Amino acid sequence: MSEIDVIVIGAGPAGEVAAGRLADGGLRVAIVEKHLVAGECSYYACMPSKALLRPGELLGEAKRVPGTREAVTGTIDVESTLARRDEVIHDLDDSAQLPWLEERGIELIRGEGALEGEKTVRVGDQTYTASKAVIISTGTGAAIPPIEGIDDVDTWNNRDATTASVRPDSMVVLGGGPVGSELSTAWASLGTKVTLVEPEPRLLMREEPFAGEQVAASLQKNYGVKVILGALATKVSQAGNAITVELNDGRTLETEKLLLATGRKPLVEGLGLETIGVDGSGFIEVEENMSVKGQGWLYAIGDVNGRVLLTHMGKYQAWVASGCILGRAVAATAEPYGSPRVTFTDPQVAAVGITEADARSSGREFDIVEVPTGAVAGASFYGKGVDGTSRLIIDRSDETIIGATFTGFETAEMIHAATIAMVGEVPMSRLRHAVPSFPTRSEIWLRLAEAYESRQD
Amino acid sequence: MSEIDVIVIGAGPAGEVAAGRLADGGLRVAIVEKHLVAGECSYYACMPSKALLRPGELLGEAKRVPGTREAVTGTIDVESTLARRDEVIHDLDDSAQLPWLEERGIELIRGEGALEGEKTVRVGDQTYTASKAVIISTGTGAAIPPIEGIDDVDTWNNRDATTASVRPDSMVVLGGGPVGSELSTAWASLGTKVTLVEPEPRLLMREEPFAGEQVAASLQKNYGVKVILGALATKVSQAGNAITVELNDGRTLETEKLLLATGRKPLVEGLGLETIGVDGSGFIEVEENMSVKGQGWLYAIGDVNGRVLLTHMGKYQAWVASGCILGRAVAATAEPYGSPRVTFTDPQVAAVGITEADARSSGREFDIVEVPTGAVAGASFYGKGVDGTSRLIIDRSDETIIGATFTGFETAEMIHAATIAMVGEVPMSRLRHAVPSFPTRSEIWLRLAEAYESRQD
Repeated sequence: MSEIDVIVIGAGPAGEVAAGRLADGGLRVAIVEKHLVAGECSYYACMPSKALLRPGELLGEAKRVPGTREAVTGTIDVESTLARRDEVIHDLDDSAQLPWLEERGIELIRGEGALEGEKTVRVGDQTYTASKAVIISTGTGAAIPPIEGIDDVDTWNNRDATTASVRPDSMVVLGGGPVGSELSTAWASLGTKVTLVEPEPRLLMREEPFAGEQVAASLQKNYGVKVILGALATKVSQAGNAITVELNDGRTLETEKLLLATGRKPLVEGLGLETIGVDGSGFIEVEENMSVKGQGWLYAIGDVNGRVLLTHMGKYQAWVASGCILGRAVAATAEPYGSPRVTFTDPQVAAVGITEADARSSGREFDIVEVPTGAVAGASFYGKGVDGTSRLIIDRSDETIIGATFTGFETAEMIHAATIAMVGEVPMSRLRHAVPSFPTRSEIWLRLAEAYESRQD
Repeated sequence: MSEIDVIVIGAGPAGEVAAGRLADGGLRVAIVEKHLVAGECSYYACMPSKALLRPGELLGEAKRVPGTREAVTGTIDVESTLARRDEVIHDLDDSAQLPWLEERGIELIRGEGALEGEKTVRVGDQTYTASKAVIISTGTGAAIPPIEGIDDVDTWNNRDATTASVRPDSMVVLGGGPVGSELSTAWASLGTKVTLVEPEPRLLMREEPFAGEQVAASLQKNYGVKVILGALATKVSQAGNAITVELNDGRTLETEKLLLATGRKPLVEGLGLETIGVDGSGFIEVEENMSVKGQGWLYAIGDVNGRVLLTHMGKYQAWVASGCILGRAVAATAEPYGSPRVTFTDPQVAAVGITEADARSSGREFDIVEVPTGAVAGASFYGKGVDGTSRLIIDRSDETIIGATFTGFETAEMIHAATIAMVGEVPMSRLRHAVPSFPTRSEIWLRLAEAYESRQD
């Protein structure tokens, strides 16, 4: 490619979406990738974790339902599960992704991209100049917590835990956020003896308290996971294949694998941000249209800008940024509503917008309505007996939803209704007329509407 | 009860909701029921059919997913499935429903209710007078098609097919609407040899053509059902346990059971409508607030008014009617948008609003966007390989959705998002900002938004 309009550094979901849209819009696009086209999410995060989680979830349900439970005589086939996981991550080979780029005339440049001044990117010994813009979408990597001895221990991060070819006998997971909670569920369902350590008083601290509480209870009761809350690892050491973890409450854990799920850090090292005077010490700060502050030609999308570390929001930001570069007036309208997110634990935790705690600290006037997710006829057939709670936070000034959390069996597909209600700013009085079908589990919306009505009576 | 404000005739879902809301609103309510409190839906329709369908659906999925398929060694346990079905329908005993009425002070009158002039209802040798209103919610029963010999054959209707205590070896189903399609799927999944006969050129004629086509293909391929389209039964006869069905195309079918799923008729006989000068020859015509034309004190809700033969819409109508009786201004806002409905076949068919054919005959200007339901990352884990189509009909004048159909694996919970978008009148340009979580199957909304955008480009 002799002339390039836009250079995208990082071919994860956000980078790919941006490149694709720009190319579809007629621009000449190059995309730089040092590892695998399709990114962390496809090979080491969302996708393989779901492949590891699905059999346990499904077999759990099959064992609950009379008529199928008698047909299930075995346990999960670990080898087959891992083989399917390998299929999902294409055996860490990205060649299946390349035709998509080729069809759009997007040039793939393998290597590490680094800025060398305005609109200029060096990859290896080649230098490329973009006529219009550069987009950084390098994502995040696992953060290493400051624990004594951590550098001398052969720890696992999300990449190791999602791509492992052998099931460990035992695993200590540090961090009870979405990554730690999902991977604890996955490996425990496959037979690993898991201990999950979270310094906060509950799992999934950013969600409504009942979410983390329900997940912890289920992990302990249904998956044999030991959940340790309010404790911090202070020292780790390794002797052969045995890792020892010392906690600040005096307890000592012995384990085969130690998974670090204690947060993410932006992948900004070596990006050459200093050549253009941009702070490269952390997440890259961006404006509402995803352009880097003070640099109209430079955009940062996806995890690396630290706004929302979620694949779908990265893809959305890609749409916003590419729209701007293409000269369309696109605003990141969705962001102020608060991103939707789903944790594929048991129960699943699906949420959008803010929590009660957020609402309280914002000083807004709001109402809460809450019902058990299982309080509908449809729950007689799907996830019978799985605990769950459905809660809406409703702005008192205009009756619109500002937060929704649905925990329970397969609530992942139930949250988009709330996202639409929020982004569409549909008030509760109007939502009462959106009738859910009987006997779907979406009748939880009827229960919530009734709870809202009776609150007002 | 010495004084009654409202008498409800028929204690199905619609009648119960109306009675409950009126009692909660402070009125004295009596409800008349000749059979079982909770109605057709709970004992003979929606609920038992889902109990019969769930094991097949679930085992099908368990056999598709590597990791669980190896754990499934048996087939569906029919006895256990039927026992669970009996549990769901409370062994046709409604005593579990009575506390709900008692708590609200609703008087239950067992027997057949018949009007005897304005606000007056006779049950057996007792006559009751309502100070405010009478609500008719008697529902529908299975219609008997005019086929030669039908009266001399021991046919099944939905009640027989949903409550059968023994699996038939073979079954001919007349009628490929939702009832016939669901019950064919259910019994075939339990091992019955099913032949489904539909006079129209496809199943589920009121839905988008691809829905019925996909269900027919799956019934034949995955369930061993023989689907005969475009043929009408002209004569039936019985010799012992063998029933013979003659079709107008010359074919003859032999079967153990003959299920009539050819439509519903309103249960208006003996209601005494003639005593107040209301036409009792068919569905009872009502105004927008569910009151019977010309009779301000009389309401008809649910199936019996023929507006929408769906439990959830009956419950909605109950809310409308009871709101009016309580003096609140409640309008049936939802109805003009077109009711949501879910057929729990394989694939599931979930829809709301109008179809392409409806849009075309209405003369409206509209756009269609359509994508395969499986064209999302989430479909790698849920219902992999199950055919399905997601289609939106979009009004060209204001970009709002006027019809949505999602067929595929467990789409039942995905349609409520469309219902909210429709009732909230959220235009497509705004829906683009309602970001679905990755990797949920709700990302089909992203695909639809992209398809809509690229249509405009």
